[in-house]
Amino acid sequence: MPYLPLEEHLPGITGLLEYRKDTAEPIRNLTQILLRGPSTLTEAERELIATVVSSGNACKFCTQAHTAAADQLLGEQDTTQKVKENINTAPVSDKMKALLTIASQVQQSGKTVSEKSIQQAKAAGATDIELHDTVLIAALFSLYNRYVDGLSTVTPTDPEFYKRLAERISKGYLRLPQGYDHLKK
Amino acid sequence: MPYLPLEEHLPGITGLLEYRKDTAEPIRNLTQILLRGPSTLTEAERELIATVVSSGNACKFCTQAHTAAADQLLGEQDTTQKVKENINTAPVSDKMKALLTIASQVQQSGKTVSEKSIQQAKAAGATDIELHDTVLIAALFSLYNRYVDGLSTVTPTDPEFYKRLAERISKGYLRLPQGYDHLKK
Repeated sequence: MPYLPLEEHLPGITGLLEYRKDTAEPIRNLTQILLRGPSTLTEAERELIATVVSSGNACKFCTQAHTAAADQLLGEQDTTQKVKENINTAPVSDKMKALLTIASQVQQSGKTVSEKSIQQAKAAGATDIELHDTVLIAALFSLYNRYVDGLSTVTPTDPEFYKRLAERISKGYLRLPQGYDHLKK
Repeated sequence: MPYLPLEEHLPGITGLLEYRKDTAEPIRNLTQILLRGPSTLTEAERELIATVVSSGNACKFCTQAHTAAADQLLGEQDTTQKVKENINTAPVSDKMKALLTIASQVQQSGKTVSEKSIQQAKAAGATDIELHDTVLIAALFSLYNRYVDGLSTVTPTDPEFYKRLAERISKGYLRLPQGYDHLKK
């Protein structure tokens, strides 16, 4: 049971973003810029960062949502599974291994991000803005995971829910005029 | 040394907010709404939430900045000190003790926020929106602390720096035309 009176058909983050729309707007805007704006990281790579952080925080709603989004963008389900199991042996580039390692460190604490991790990412070709965005995306999902779980929102168990949500967020994070009606069964 | 080429006269969060201004804007807007917008929590009470979370994350820049802001809004330095030492014995209302306890739980993990803490806050008079805002402010500072420390930004040691910063942020979090020039010595 959520700690707030949220709309029953809006589980996880979706109910919170409707509960207080004025705070939702800058959260949506920040997410849109970081995950869907122009970047040398693909949208799937940025969803992998969101997935790794959410998985590290054991936020089931966010992990399933961003796993589904990355799966949809990648067209397969193998990469997300392996990234969640072990970044070092996952089928991603050396640059992404280094950036996902930094994201995992941010998930634990900002202080955990080591000079060594940064140097490894740079050696693998990561640019300053990619380092910046990796840290900020990981910090943003540290916010989301706490918002979703801190207010005890509902986590759907039906994988179809996350597929529908992924179809929505693969197009973007801004609020649509119809809200979340498409998520209803 | 910061991991990014930030302007030398802009330590902590200030250099990051100038480094990528398009992501800074929604972060500033969210902070402005939550910490300076209309609320039944005073601005000082909301700065105490930011202080407790930043202190829990051992983010020295954010802790000193929001301690100084709360001190300035309260007109004394005793409350912030005692809140950082022990929420339960600090000179704040029972409602604030309960909300600061929830903020501390959010700082650790969203999952740590217990039904019991929520019931205690409600019994002490906390409203739904106060609970929502407490969790979201705590989640936002979980972002800030990671952003500031994850990129190894500089932490000034001169207390005068934080006094000047507090004068600035006690007026609001939106970007001023002159940027941070007033923070220069």
